[in-house]
Amino acid sequence: MDLSLLSQEIQHFLNHYSYGKSPKELYEPIDYLMNLGGKRMRPLLVLLGYQLFDDSWQKAVPAAVSVEVFHNFTLMHDDIMDKAPLRRSQPTVHTKWSESIAILSGDVMLIKAYEILMSGVEDKYLRKALEKFNACAAWVCEGQQWDMNFESETTVSESQYIEMIRLKTAVLLGFSLELGAMLAGASEEEQLKIRAFGENIGIGFQLKDDLLDVYGNPDKFGKQVGGDIVANKKTYLLLEAIAQAKGDTKTQLENWLAQKNFDIEEKVKAVTEIYNTLKIKEKTEQKIQYFFDLAFKQLHELNARDTQKQFLDDFMRQLIAREN
Amino acid sequence: MDLSLLSQEIQHFLNHYSYGKSPKELYEPIDYLMNLGGKRMRPLLVLLGYQLFDDSWQKAVPAAVSVEVFHNFTLMHDDIMDKAPLRRSQPTVHTKWSESIAILSGDVMLIKAYEILMSGVEDKYLRKALEKFNACAAWVCEGQQWDMNFESETTVSESQYIEMIRLKTAVLLGFSLELGAMLAGASEEEQLKIRAFGENIGIGFQLKDDLLDVYGNPDKFGKQVGGDIVANKKTYLLLEAIAQAKGDTKTQLENWLAQKNFDIEEKVKAVTEIYNTLKIKEKTEQKIQYFFDLAFKQLHELNARDTQKQFLDDFMRQLIAREN
Repeated sequence: MDLSLLSQEIQHFLNHYSYGKSPKELYEPIDYLMNLGGKRMRPLLVLLGYQLFDDSWQKAVPAAVSVEVFHNFTLMHDDIMDKAPLRRSQPTVHTKWSESIAILSGDVMLIKAYEILMSGVEDKYLRKALEKFNACAAWVCEGQQWDMNFESETTVSESQYIEMIRLKTAVLLGFSLELGAMLAGASEEEQLKIRAFGENIGIGFQLKDDLLDVYGNPDKFGKQVGGDIVANKKTYLLLEAIAQAKGDTKTQLENWLAQKNFDIEEKVKAVTEIYNTLKIKEKTEQKIQYFFDLAFKQLHELNARDTQKQFLDDFMRQLIAREN
Repeated sequence: MDLSLLSQEIQHFLNHYSYGKSPKELYEPIDYLMNLGGKRMRPLLVLLGYQLFDDSWQKAVPAAVSVEVFHNFTLMHDDIMDKAPLRRSQPTVHTKWSESIAILSGDVMLIKAYEILMSGVEDKYLRKALEKFNACAAWVCEGQQWDMNFESETTVSESQYIEMIRLKTAVLLGFSLELGAMLAGASEEEQLKIRAFGENIGIGFQLKDDLLDVYGNPDKFGKQVGGDIVANKKTYLLLEAIAQAKGDTKTQLENWLAQKNFDIEEKVKAVTEIYNTLKIKEKTEQKIQYFFDLAFKQLHELNARDTQKQFLDDFMRQLIAREN
């Protein structure tokens, strides 16, 4: 099995698919965003999910791509809501064109995701695949709404936070694997198991993202280390720190969170010190490990082809080892 | 056949359907917008399209409602793009909540439209119904984009304008009838004919809307007469006037369009006079009649049940006779 072959086929489909031509204001932003690149992790997971149960993964390429189109639809709309100026170091669609165009192009992307998915699903799987896609798509929106709600909430519990990241990012990884497995003829039971694997990996990924934002190697981490601290972003680390800080440490943390004018480096250093005092790094690492361990246990309990299970295991461990 | 019975069943489904509960910021705006009312014309057309070919219209109620949900999704997003403060005399979702919430709730509405449609379509029609829904949904977005493009274009031809309103509003009326016909087992040929009827009626409706904005009876017309003139909205009337005006009339019209500060009544009166001089009212009435005549001819050529054809004919003529 050759991962680059899977990537090539995904890219080949993406390069040849036309979302539409006219009016160009509607379709150019879709081409633009889809061509900004990315690891194409979700479509790869669809194909790897397929391979667990059957060889003819080529059949699943359109379905795989539909998940990538859906993912990019969420990015286009989330970027408006988050007022993000950049996406993969390039101007976001609402910055380069306009908010209205980003709303409407995003809407079309969601419709195209359905169109592409349907083109890649045989009749016998059509209703089930679309039902699961609908449910997953609504969960992703719910996760984004929880994330926005948390910005203005003073306390967010660990379980609320994990449920938010599960909905916002992990369910789509789970769905990707589940979709691949379904199209390869896996039983409902195996579909649910591989989906649980994907979800737990996804939660681990997001927690790791939170951790690396503070403790990542600045040379390897793609973004400014400490960005979340500067923005008071309610990450797993900050929520744990808020929950555990007492006395002086608590006062210091609250002061830094309330500060409007500050030296960026000084704030990052000070809050990191507070995290160190509270052993937040260790606590987060344990939590990440918990989700990864759970995931790999679920993968190995799966009734699927052993070589392919090992391949998926290796693939995920490589992703986990990366620092961006 | 009793129209109020169809309306009741549509409303009953709408009253009992839950889009979701949590987070409430995501789902309350959907309930709010869906409960602002409206004539429910599109779901009625689905059921009337069904009745042309079969009696068991109750089967088509979920599919009918899905079109209404889709229509309201487009209203939620269009209102953001158009910066509209009010919808049916109530605050729009982005005004009452926020733009982000209106974007995200709208996204969920689109997903729910698919969910509801699927729940109401038997397996044998599922792929075809969804393919047509996908195509129609993308056309509606294209129409909205053309409409936005036209705001900043100096010349828009009659055929460009009619193509815009066809995509933005007429195709969904056509799809409603087509969907009903499909679910009742009509042939592809009859589906296309009933859809053409709906599209041509839809184009006529929109042209009539343009006409009534200037020449409507202020006591019957729901909005301020002359609102389009005040806003320089590129309606059929204005585009015709721009195309036909010459000499002095042309200069006058251009001056009114360029004017930043003006007395509202004075501008409405002056531009209406220009329309009168150019016989724009008569020209528009002829165009409307052309589309309605074409539509009813298509309806009567349809190979369907005569009583139901006549009922649909009467229903449409009543809608046409209304001034709002």
